[in-house]
Amino acid sequence: MTPDTDAHATRKAEARHWFETLQNRLIAAFEAMEDAGPAWPAAPEGPGRFVREAWHRTDHAGDPGGGGTMAVLKGRVFEKAGIHASTVFGRFAPEFASQIPGASEDPRFWASGVSLIAHPWNPNAPTVHMNTRMVVTTKAWFGGGADLTPVLEARRHQDDPDAVAFHAAMRAACEAHPGVASHPKFKTWCDDYFHLKHRNEPRGIGGIFYDYLETDPFEPPFAFTRQVGETFLQAYPPIVASNIAKPATAAQEAEQLVRRGRYVEFNLLYDRGTLFGLKTGGNVASILSSLPPRVTWP
Amino acid sequence: MTPDTDAHATRKAEARHWFETLQNRLIAAFEAMEDAGPAWPAAPEGPGRFVREAWHRTDHAGDPGGGGTMAVLKGRVFEKAGIHASTVFGRFAPEFASQIPGASEDPRFWASGVSLIAHPWNPNAPTVHMNTRMVVTTKAWFGGGADLTPVLEARRHQDDPDAVAFHAAMRAACEAHPGVASHPKFKTWCDDYFHLKHRNEPRGIGGIFYDYLETDPFEPPFAFTRQVGETFLQAYPPIVASNIAKPATAAQEAEQLVRRGRYVEFNLLYDRGTLFGLKTGGNVASILSSLPPRVTWP
Repeated sequence: MTPDTDAHATRKAEARHWFETLQNRLIAAFEAMEDAGPAWPAAPEGPGRFVREAWHRTDHAGDPGGGGTMAVLKGRVFEKAGIHASTVFGRFAPEFASQIPGASEDPRFWASGVSLIAHPWNPNAPTVHMNTRMVVTTKAWFGGGADLTPVLEARRHQDDPDAVAFHAAMRAACEAHPGVASHPKFKTWCDDYFHLKHRNEPRGIGGIFYDYLETDPFEPPFAFTRQVGETFLQAYPPIVASNIAKPATAAQEAEQLVRRGRYVEFNLLYDRGTLFGLKTGGNVASILSSLPPRVTWP
Repeated sequence: MTPDTDAHATRKAEARHWFETLQNRLIAAFEAMEDAGPAWPAAPEGPGRFVREAWHRTDHAGDPGGGGTMAVLKGRVFEKAGIHASTVFGRFAPEFASQIPGASEDPRFWASGVSLIAHPWNPNAPTVHMNTRMVVTTKAWFGGGADLTPVLEARRHQDDPDAVAFHAAMRAACEAHPGVASHPKFKTWCDDYFHLKHRNEPRGIGGIFYDYLETDPFEPPFAFTRQVGETFLQAYPPIVASNIAKPATAAQEAEQLVRRGRYVEFNLLYDRGTLFGLKTGGNVASILSSLPPRVTWP
């Protein structure tokens, strides 16, 4: 299978269309949370709105390589949220080709996806991450996942109502696609992936992580990938709603900023997407929009 | 040459003694700057003092592997400064042995050094880093350097008085050891090393960086390494003194916090010492004490 057959052209167009549609729906959902409020005392006035910015990528060889739309919100509920869709293509640099399935024979690739990271102002509300993508080399596959990062130690356990609700939603998403998805497997993969080895501590309470769901046949992994987006859209807003009006102490705010430092450590030391993006000429502004707005290493 | 010959025992003891002595002298010099003040408005009251903490390392195989003394100050001139000395030994894990000169034949190593990073409160005063070390595998060598990171764009150029003074000091240090050191080479090495590839921007205004100065004969590279420490002790305090009483605007304080984010990006994405330490069971608290205390990614 080469990266540019006609069959793939249709599949790539369908996946791209879904990711771009999902970006718009996520933006609408987050702006609705901004409308609902309440405003955090230190936040700017009025409900926040995403600012969209198109970017274009140049392949490492200097050829056009696609691009995307980054959308960043600085609001009154979310101190910072980024929701990005991108579709990039070209040839992997030789040092990467050997690391990517199917690319060592032929370095051409195509990748499309949507990614979201949101940092609420209120330390009671958990930080969240969601990403789904389709990648085509001489192989083609879907990957993605969603995970929750409560920032207060008292909320970072599996019995917390947020963790229970988030895991239940992701379990249901997996169980609706039994031929493709395994919740125990994808939950363990998430725990293994979002782990800060140098501190031997988890990034958050987990969620699901999946990769290399091959697209032959196409519909089952694509349907599951759409399900992850739909499930996320349903699952996260109620978690925000249940926490966002709670008062927070100065000590909790300080704890939040330290925990955000761990988030930075994970993203810059371990996150494959971040490192891959930075090393393959991705858009630095959208890749690093994942970093929390205010952080401390006291 | 094996890592534990008698000749090396003497040399290792001498180097270690120097690094530990230098740590104490650096601590005294920074506490003197704390005494001199003035206090930054948001800082804690009174001149800061370093808090020393011993740590012990376990080799990856579970054997004792040395340790060190971390010393961290949270003061009224320096929002955070770390000055650490450590002496570690053991065997490199197989995945590292191939990357370290002289370790692929025999994975045993010994390393001793001193490192310093200081983040002043006042954005007019530049952040600074200094590190010197001796490493022994089947080879033995010195490495290190010092570099300056002004945090205000208006001060980040080679004609700035701080840059002129710092480079002049490091040039003199190199020129005093002509058989060992080359200022043009070590300055270029510094510029190349402290470069944020993903942003195509330098970390600061540079300084010197050197590595693999082999210890046969021992005295010339050791003398140069001592010189770097002595030169740093002479060069940095006057730079602080000339800046520390200047007023700063809110915009300059905001710029400082963004620039500190770049410092975090460099240390977690590129810095060999940081990545090496985190992956070889180094002391996380002392390694990451390099990270600035307050940071923004707006």
